[in-house]
Amino acid sequence: MSRLVGQLPMPLTRTFLHREACARAFTPSRSTPPRISAHCISRKFFSSSPGRRFTPALQRLDKHTPDRIPNAEWPYLYHKYTKMANLDSYFQQVDTLQDSFIDRLREAVAIPSISSEDARRPDVVKMGHWLADQIKALGGTVELRELGKQPGREHLDLPPCLLGRYGNDPKKVNVLVYGHYDVQPANKSDGWATDPFTLSIDDKGRMFGRGSTDDKGPVLGWLNAIEAHQKAGIELPVNLIMCFEGMEENGSEGLDDTIRAEAKKFFKDADVVCISDNYWLGTEKPCLTYGVRGCNYYSIDIAGPAADLHSGVYGGVSHEPMTDLIRIMDSFVNPDGKILIEGLDKLVAPMTEQEEALYPPIAFTMNDLEQSLGGKVSIQDTKEEALKAKMRYPSLSLHGIEGAFHGEGAKTVIPAKVIGKFSIRTVPNMEIDAVTELVEKHVNEQFAKLNSKNRMNFNVLHCGKWWVEDFNHPNYTAAAKAVERVFNVKPDMTREGGSIPVTLTFQEELGKNVLLLPMGSSTDAAHSINEKLDKRNYIEGTKLLGAYLHYVGSELKKE
Amino acid sequence: MSRLVGQLPMPLTRTFLHREACARAFTPSRSTPPRISAHCISRKFFSSSPGRRFTPALQRLDKHTPDRIPNAEWPYLYHKYTKMANLDSYFQQVDTLQDSFIDRLREAVAIPSISSEDARRPDVVKMGHWLADQIKALGGTVELRELGKQPGREHLDLPPCLLGRYGNDPKKVNVLVYGHYDVQPANKSDGWATDPFTLSIDDKGRMFGRGSTDDKGPVLGWLNAIEAHQKAGIELPVNLIMCFEGMEENGSEGLDDTIRAEAKKFFKDADVVCISDNYWLGTEKPCLTYGVRGCNYYSIDIAGPAADLHSGVYGGVSHEPMTDLIRIMDSFVNPDGKILIEGLDKLVAPMTEQEEALYPPIAFTMNDLEQSLGGKVSIQDTKEEALKAKMRYPSLSLHGIEGAFHGEGAKTVIPAKVIGKFSIRTVPNMEIDAVTELVEKHVNEQFAKLNSKNRMNFNVLHCGKWWVEDFNHPNYTAAAKAVERVFNVKPDMTREGGSIPVTLTFQEELGKNVLLLPMGSSTDAAHSINEKLDKRNYIEGTKLLGAYLHYVGSELKKE
Repeated sequence: MSRLVGQLPMPLTRTFLHREACARAFTPSRSTPPRISAHCISRKFFSSSPGRRFTPALQRLDKHTPDRIPNAEWPYLYHKYTKMANLDSYFQQVDTLQDSFIDRLREAVAIPSISSEDARRPDVVKMGHWLADQIKALGGTVELRELGKQPGREHLDLPPCLLGRYGNDPKKVNVLVYGHYDVQPANKSDGWATDPFTLSIDDKGRMFGRGSTDDKGPVLGWLNAIEAHQKAGIELPVNLIMCFEGMEENGSEGLDDTIRAEAKKFFKDADVVCISDNYWLGTEKPCLTYGVRGCNYYSIDIAGPAADLHSGVYGGVSHEPMTDLIRIMDSFVNPDGKILIEGLDKLVAPMTEQEEALYPPIAFTMNDLEQSLGGKVSIQDTKEEALKAKMRYPSLSLHGIEGAFHGEGAKTVIPAKVIGKFSIRTVPNMEIDAVTELVEKHVNEQFAKLNSKNRMNFNVLHCGKWWVEDFNHPNYTAAAKAVERVFNVKPDMTREGGSIPVTLTFQEELGKNVLLLPMGSSTDAAHSINEKLDKRNYIEGTKLLGAYLHYVGSELKKE
Repeated sequence: MSRLVGQLPMPLTRTFLHREACARAFTPSRSTPPRISAHCISRKFFSSSPGRRFTPALQRLDKHTPDRIPNAEWPYLYHKYTKMANLDSYFQQVDTLQDSFIDRLREAVAIPSISSEDARRPDVVKMGHWLADQIKALGGTVELRELGKQPGREHLDLPPCLLGRYGNDPKKVNVLVYGHYDVQPANKSDGWATDPFTLSIDDKGRMFGRGSTDDKGPVLGWLNAIEAHQKAGIELPVNLIMCFEGMEENGSEGLDDTIRAEAKKFFKDADVVCISDNYWLGTEKPCLTYGVRGCNYYSIDIAGPAADLHSGVYGGVSHEPMTDLIRIMDSFVNPDGKILIEGLDKLVAPMTEQEEALYPPIAFTMNDLEQSLGGKVSIQDTKEEALKAKMRYPSLSLHGIEGAFHGEGAKTVIPAKVIGKFSIRTVPNMEIDAVTELVEKHVNEQFAKLNSKNRMNFNVLHCGKWWVEDFNHPNYTAAAKAVERVFNVKPDMTREGGSIPVTLTFQEELGKNVLLLPMGSSTDAAHSINEKLDKRNYIEGTKLLGAYLHYVGSELKKE
C-alpha cells in the first residue's frame, strides 16, 4: 500500500490515464484535469449513480433478508463458521515450513527492488524474474508482461507485470490476487538500525528489512500457501490468478492499462479479487478493509504584482496576493475540522443504524490514536467518532502555499504570486464533479467578497474517487471465517482513510468483488526506516491466506 | 541603500548588536529579541518619548513662526535661494571633467567588491584601498579602520571602514558624509545585457554596471566635487568627514560599533550628516528624504502532531496546525490593507494639515505606481493617498509559512509544525514594544478562540525602529536650495517605506541632523540585473553634492 506522506503518485497516474479520454471535456476557462466518472461500486449492492442515493448493503439486507443477520452484529453474516477438514494439516505444515518461508522472505528482501531509483531498475526486474522462478518452481505458470518505456522517462524500461496462474480446474473458483514486488527507497544512513536489505530478526520476532511488510511478505504468503498445501498433500481448493506489479511505489505506471487490457483475457475467469497490501488497525486484531476515501486535490493561485515586492517599499499600496489567499483558505474549514463549503455535507451518505454498529467492536482506542498522532491533538472524544471521521466522513486539509516565503528566518517579501494547496477526502456519495462544483462556487464567492484587484484561478490538480465494496459478498464472509479460524477472533471491518487506487480499477474493469485482506500490523513502518513484519503476522498470515482460499472456494462453490 | 527583496541583513545586525545589551530583559515565556528603544528623533523638534505625542516640526512652526512659511508650501523655508558666487565656475568645471569622472566610476565598477561572497572579499578590501588612494591623491587623509573577523564567519576578515577627512579648518562647518564601496552580487548569466563589472554606456547615457548607482557613483560624487573645486581654484566651503563602509550589502557588520566608537573621536566635530544612498521617487525630480518606516517582524509557530501526517489516514481526526495558523493570519489584515489589530491605529501620529500639504507637490503619478507594481493592483485611487500609505502609515504583510508544503504539484500532507511569518512597517509614534504588546495580545486572543489542542508560540524575529528627521533644519534647507540651484526645481520631500538603519545610528550616536540626498533615479535597478546610473544623474548629482556643501556651509555659518 502506498501510504507515503509525499507526492502521491497513484492518483496522478490515474489522472494521466484519464487525460486522453477526457481531453475533450476540458473547459478553457478553468484548468481542470479530467475526473474519473466511472462508478466504483458493484451495482449489485450499491448505487452511486447521480440522482440515486448510496444505499449500503446492510440497510437493504435489513429489509429483505433480516433472517441472515444473527443479531445485527454485521458483518458476521454466518451463524457459525464451517469446519474445514484440511486446514489443520495445512496449518501444521505452515508451522513446519516456517524457517524456509522466512528464508524465502530473506532472499526477496536481499534484492533492492526500488522502483523509484533509476539505478535500481535492474534490481526491480531481477526481483520480477526471481518471483517468476519461485512460482514456476511450485508448478505455476507465469507471463512477465513487458510494459514498454516509462512515460516521461523514456530511457527506462518499466519492470514487467507478473501474470501468474496456479491451477486450472474449471470446477474451482478463480481467485485473483494482487501484490507488488517493488519497494520504497532505503539507505542505512536514513537511520536504519540494521542493513535494510538484510532481513534481521530480533528476539521479539520482528523481521526488519525493506519490503518485509510492503509488500514482499504478503506476496510470498500466497506462494507459501501453495507450498504448504503441496507438502501437506492437500489440493489447493481454488485456482489462483496472480497479478504482481513492480511499480506500485512509483505510481503503478502501466498497471491500469494492463488490468484494462487483461480484463477479458488473463483475468477473464476471476470470480473475486483479494489484495494483501494494507495493515491492521492495531497489532492484535486482523481486519477486512471494504473501502477507501477518495481525494479531490485543488489549488488556488492568486497573482497581482509583476514580481515579488519589498514590503517596506510597497507595503500598504498594493493588493497583496498572500492576504487574499489566506482569507480564502481560512474560509474552508474550522479548527475542529468542520468543512464550511456550503452543500458539501448534503452529499455525504447518511449514517445508518446498522452502519453505526460496525464501529464499537473495532479494536482501537483513543490512546492508540493519540499515540499515532504523537500528541493529544485528536478532535473527537470517543473511538467511534474518531473512526467515523477517519473512515466514512470527508475531511479538508490545507497543505501549504507555493510561491510565498518558506525558508527559515525573516524575509520582508510581498510574494507576487502564491498558490494555495488543499484537498478534500471524499466518501460516498460525493461524486468528484459535484464536489468540485461546490468548491469552485465557494472559492469564486469568497474571492468576489475581497474586492481585490489581484487575479485568481481555481485549479483541480487531481481527483481520485472513493471506493466502497459490498462487504456482504461471500468474498468477505470467507475472509471473516478465515480470520476467526486462524486468530479465533472476528475481524475488524475497516475503511482506509487514504487511497488505494488499484481497488477501484479492479472493481471497475472486472466488475468483481474486491477484498483487502492485510497481513501486517499498524506498527510495521512501511515506507519508513526500520520497516518490519512480525514473524507471527507472516506465519499466521500465511495460514490466513490459505484458509481464506478454502473458505472462498466453499462460499462460492460452483457445483 | 539596501532595497533587496530578501533576507534583510541590516535589521538583523541591529538586533544582534542589541542582543548583548538587552540579554537580561529576555522573558523565558516568549522568544523576544531585544528591541531598540532609543529615541530616534532630534529632541529639538520632535518628541517620541512614551507618553508624549509626536509633534511634527511644521505644526509647531505653524504656531510659533508662521512668518517663515511663505504659503504653507513647506519645506521651502527660504523665501528665495541665495546666489552662491562660486557655483557657476564649479559647475563649469564639473562639466569639463565629466569624462574623467566617468573614468573614475569605470575603475571603481571594475573592482567586483561583492561583500556577501567569500571569494570576493579580497576585491572588497582592494576597493577600500583604491578609494583610500583616490582620497589621498586629492589631498585628503584616510584611516582604514580594521574591524576584525566577521561574526559567525571567523575565517573572514571584515573589509575596513574608511574614515577620511578633507579639510580641517575650525572656522568651517564639518559635514559627515556616508556611503559604501561594496556591491550586490552580479553575474552575466543572471541576465545582464553587458558584463556587470565593465561600465557600459548606451546612447541614452545610461551607464550600466554593478555598483554604478549603489553606491559607487554617489561615493565618487563627493570625490568629484573635491576635484572640481580644486581644478576650478575654489576652496571647499566645508570640512568633509567621510565614512565609507564595505559591508553595507552584507548586514553592515561592524558599522554600528564603529559609529559608536568614533562618535566622540573621529566624528566628534561633525555638525550635520549627509547620506547619498537612496533614490529619487521618479526619474526627473530630485528628492530629500527625511524618514523611513520601521519594521517589527514576527512569527507564530503552531505545532500539534509529532510528525507530518498523511491527510488520507489522519484527515478529520487531528487538529491541524495549518488550519489554526491560517485562521490567525487571516485576522491581521483586510485585503484593502486595513490592519485589524486593535489599538494599533491609535499609536499612529495624526496627520496634520501642514503635513497634508507635503504630498501634492511630489512628482509621482498613479501610473508610476502601477508601473512599478507591474499591474493595476494599487489599493489607493489617488497619488496622495498612495504616497501616504507608503511613507507615513503602517502596513502589515503576510510573508509566508515555514514547515508547510511549498513545492510544485500536490502533496497530501498535514504539516506537523508550521511557522507563519508577518511584519508590520511602523511609523511615528509606534514604539516597538507598544506594537509588540498589541500584536501579542491579538494573537493570544485569536488562538484562544480556536479551541485548538495544538500549541502556539508567538515570536519576535527582529524589530527596527522608524526614523524621522527634522526637515526644518538648515541641513535640509541647504539641500533644497542646492537642488533648486542645480535642477531649477524644488525637491520632493519623501520618506522611504523600507528601512535604512544607518540613519538612525548616526542620529542616535551623534545627535546631529541626518539628511538623505540621493543621486540615482527610481529606474536604476539597484540590486537587480542591469543596474545603471544615468550620466545626467552622475554629473548633475556631482554638482548637487558640491552645491549642497556650499549652502550647508552658508546656512550653518560658524561666524
